[in-house]
Amino acid sequence: MRPVTRPVITLTTDFGLTDHFVGTMKGVILSVCPRAEMIDISHQVRTFDVAEAGFLIAQAWPYFPAGTVHIVVVDPGVGNSRRPILAEAGGHLFVAPDNGVLSMTLAAAEHRVRSITAEKYFRRPVSRTFHGRDIFAPVGAHLASGVLPSRFGKRIDDFLRLASEEPVRTARRAWTGTILKIDRFGNLLTNFRSSDFAQIETQAFEIRAGLRSITRLATSYAELNIGELCVIGGSSGYLEIAANQASAAKILGCGSGAPVELKLL
Amino acid sequence: MRPVTRPVITLTTDFGLTDHFVGTMKGVILSVCPRAEMIDISHQVRTFDVAEAGFLIAQAWPYFPAGTVHIVVVDPGVGNSRRPILAEAGGHLFVAPDNGVLSMTLAAAEHRVRSITAEKYFRRPVSRTFHGRDIFAPVGAHLASGVLPSRFGKRIDDFLRLASEEPVRTARRAWTGTILKIDRFGNLLTNFRSSDFAQIETQAFEIRAGLRSITRLATSYAELNIGELCVIGGSSGYLEIAANQASAAKILGCGSGAPVELKLL
Amino acid sequence: MRPVTRPVITLTTDFGLTDHFVGTMKGVILSVCPRAEMIDISHQVRTFDVAEAGFLIAQAWPYFPAGTVHIVVVDPGVGNSRRPILAEAGGHLFVAPDNGVLSMTLAAAEHRVRSITAEKYFRRPVSRTFHGRDIFAPVGAHLASGVLPSRFGKRIDDFLRLASEEPVRTARRAWTGTILKIDRFGNLLTNFRSSDFAQIETQAFEIRAGLRSITRLATSYAELNIGELCVIGGSSGYLEIAANQASAAKILGCGSGAPVELKLL
Repeated sequence: MRPVTRPVITLTTDFGLTDHFVGTMKGVILSVCPRAEMIDISHQVRTFDVAEAGFLIAQAWPYFPAGTVHIVVVDPGVGNSRRPILAEAGGHLFVAPDNGVLSMTLAAAEHRVRSITAEKYFRRPVSRTFHGRDIFAPVGAHLASGVLPSRFGKRIDDFLRLASEEPVRTARRAWTGTILKIDRFGNLLTNFRSSDFAQIETQAFEIRAGLRSITRLATSYAELNIGELCVIGGSSGYLEIAANQASAAKILGCGSGAPVELKLL
Repeated sequence: MRPVTRPVITLTTDFGLTDHFVGTMKGVILSVCPRAEMIDISHQVRTFDVAEAGFLIAQAWPYFPAGTVHIVVVDPGVGNSRRPILAEAGGHLFVAPDNGVLSMTLAAAEHRVRSITAEKYFRRPVSRTFHGRDIFAPVGAHLASGVLPSRFGKRIDDFLRLASEEPVRTARRAWTGTILKIDRFGNLLTNFRSSDFAQIETQAFEIRAGLRSITRLATSYAELNIGELCVIGGSSGYLEIAANQASAAKILGCGSGAPVELKLL
Repeated sequence: MRPVTRPVITLTTDFGLTDHFVGTMKGVILSVCPRAEMIDISHQVRTFDVAEAGFLIAQAWPYFPAGTVHIVVVDPGVGNSRRPILAEAGGHLFVAPDNGVLSMTLAAAEHRVRSITAEKYFRRPVSRTFHGRDIFAPVGAHLASGVLPSRFGKRIDDFLRLASEEPVRTARRAWTGTILKIDRFGNLLTNFRSSDFAQIETQAFEIRAGLRSITRLATSYAELNIGELCVIGGSSGYLEIAANQASAAKILGCGSGAPVELKLL
């Protein structure tokens, strides 16, 4: 039975928008599944940055309709023995290399993972350097066309999981966390989950990042003076360090991976 | 009754293409209106540059089919008391924050504007920092699905209008205008409307910008020597200062907002 | 008869993603052909770089479904007398300025080329500077809607062909080629076709580019140490000089157009 609505496929890669790579993947997808609606999450992932791609897809997928197929290709190991995998989680389908890029997504939802071995769903011949085009795109498109996950390969349990970077408690009322990501606006996303640190809404606190310490909790950027720093419960579910209409990252001189200390006063 | 063609939604934001923001908005839209056709106008608006976004949507919307829903989110005031608004103009629908971003669009067409207050069309909970995802995307998608504008809130008249920057007459045959925008090719778009200054097609004139004065009117870039400067009636409806296969902005050392003097000789 | 699947249109331009140009073209296309599925190959072609656009479309088109309409607009001669052309090749349709941008595509497939003269398919009035919007988009959309190629103009044979840069044999076992392109990962695409130089799979060889000489043939990036250089048969059909998780272009200090020497030892 054909579904009433179009199947949706999202794409997250480090292929950039300058080359023909993304367009070519979409041509392959349309050749297999002409009705697919394709949505770009990002193709500007830093080259080979598996963790960044993992963060982006973990943020985006819950906002898509059930049944969406998410293709994630950041693949420094392309052509070696790392397996392509297919995961079912939260009513969605994910296709990616087995390099941990789905760790954050799968940590948050019950899941079943398969090793993709059914080569009849690949584009032939399979190149050594562009599995996005030859494996991930056609497999995703066949999934979107309604081929059952079980047809692509056997269930596995030993897929690669990257340890999530959780804040470390360093004293009774102190934790050290890290900057997960800097967004386009220069906001620093920490790995402190807003829901785990709800205390800061009622208690005095201090967050140190770079050379500065921030004690102000804001509920919107706009309540600050321009350029003023604050901590804010971001749309991502994590505490963010932000500045009103300015880049907190520039003000603090901090990058992705930098440490952040949180103290309840 | 379902329309025969798919509803069209355009997106204009300063969210960039590196983060998950745009993809997430599209997931929300598809969850509400699975048949929506989504077109990016630009997501590379300079962060917080309301005027630039206003220019882009004013340029693009007339080329879309009647009934298109245009979502514009450049929103430095997100989370404060600025209202989300819905405008009907020229047979199209516009959803944006009430910060003047629609000024150029509404100045050119009869319009009705509403304050969006019907929270049942929002994604809940509404975050404090990402109304693109939680308000503007779902409201746009409900509109595209056929919900009537009147369902979203009451008509208002006190929405924010930014004064348009019109050239100022400084002598009987002289005006001072400004550079509205620099495009990717380095062309300088002035705020002199071609139709208001049709005289330069038949009279000698001089335009001064940066350190140079230009007296040549071209009808195509290609009639110039490479690197030669000219004034040309651009595709935007404004006079542009351009160079053949070179950046007029670099040659003149001029940026957006710089003054331009026009004299009829 | 309406086709069961949606007509597909690809877009390759040097318009960038910052301005409204691409969005505007898509509005024009949807106004003519509301069912069109539009896929971006790239809009980040270097401004006026006809050869780069020609390479991208030649790489991408074979992966799209038969009948796809490919619109290619890198057009330094816009507004002068260069003709718009329509090419049928390999079961696909191409619309572009007659400046050689389709040379690489047409060299690889039987083709018929027409000069587009039927102005009734243009958007009126036709601007002098934005034929992407006023000519190429509406012509492509009418084609996608099913208007026959013969309706757009007469066949021609004198369209512009750019000479392809083939490697030059400099000795019995030596050739000089060139770098066609550098991709986002810093891989250098040479103009040595993998199929023409299959000998290097079994014979010792040396490739010189920049200051270095490379003698290693890899079958995947991942078999190298990080930063190590190799030659690899790329997904494009050409030999590439690559490094594992590093930019070969940076290591070698080489750019597009640089010479490459290949010697069989």
